[in-house]
Amino acid sequence: MRLSTKLTAAAIAIGLTAGAASQALAQQKPDEALKMRQGLMQAVKMNFGPIAGFAQGKGDLPADAAAKAGHLTALAKMAPMAWGKGSEALPGANTKAEAFASADFAKGWTAMGEASAKLQAAAASGGAEAIKAAAGEVGKTCKGCHDTFRKE
Amino acid sequence: MRLSTKLTAAAIAIGLTAGAASQALAQQKPDEALKMRQGLMQAVKMNFGPIAGFAQGKGDLPADAAAKAGHLTALAKMAPMAWGKGSEALPGANTKAEAFASADFAKGWTAMGEASAKLQAAAASGGAEAIKAAAGEVGKTCKGCHDTFRKE
Repeated sequence: MRLSTKLTAAAIAIGLTAGAASQALAQQKPDEALKMRQGLMQAVKMNFGPIAGFAQGKGDLPADAAAKAGHLTALAKMAPMAWGKGSEALPGANTKAEAFASADFAKGWTAMGEASAKLQAAAASGGAEAIKAAAGEVGKTCKGCHDTFRKE
Repeated sequence: MRLSTKLTAAAIAIGLTAGAASQALAQQKPDEALKMRQGLMQAVKMNFGPIAGFAQGKGDLPADAAAKAGHLTALAKMAPMAWGKGSEALPGANTKAEAFASADFAKGWTAMGEASAKLQAAAASGGAEAIKAAAGEVGKTCKGCHDTFRKE
């Protein structure tokens, strides 16, 4: 099979018709942006939740805490692309419109990524108090943006 | 403010009440798992789409192709947690039930992560043909699981 044929097959396999690939090149659809950010925020919750629970004394440290913190770092890096313009006012959108035009919004994700990387380092070296402190710093970056940019 | 107070504030800020944190420790709710995987698959599409488009000759290579490939690698690592049991039959679920009990499903994500890491390396070094070939290998890992585990 020629490479171009293989690539077309691969593109179709992931739901990328030629038109969809072109669309993805050009612009994310608003409803796709919303779906992506809802899923990414859910992923943040699933990865941070158990560590925050540990920091609150509500459970054991997850065995894969360092991996979870690594996921948080990765999510923070890719998150901004999910707040695409045109998706501000969709049903279920829970972000204030000003976030879409604010440099502070992207900076908030950068801060969250940096705090998550420190949490990952703390989790890898294993000191409980250091992990709790680092988790608190991650939580502060969550709160910083939520206070400013979240509707509810 | 004491650390425990700060952590509680942080947990509330990210929507993690004490109950929610405990729940996250215990088990992901089926509807949350579904939301997470829909968002992660959307993120895969948004990151791979422009590179696949380039590989198909439909556009320029994104300037941030290596970063996008890095996001794909990270998404592959965290994806399996989004296919939580109990979410097989929800409206909108598009994964065959057997995926939830198959070791091949997790192996598929591992293969996708490895192929994405190679794509990232190719994108970082910049050879167009190497990038196209590596994109084709990523696409094959998409197709491999979609053929087996996707409903539609």
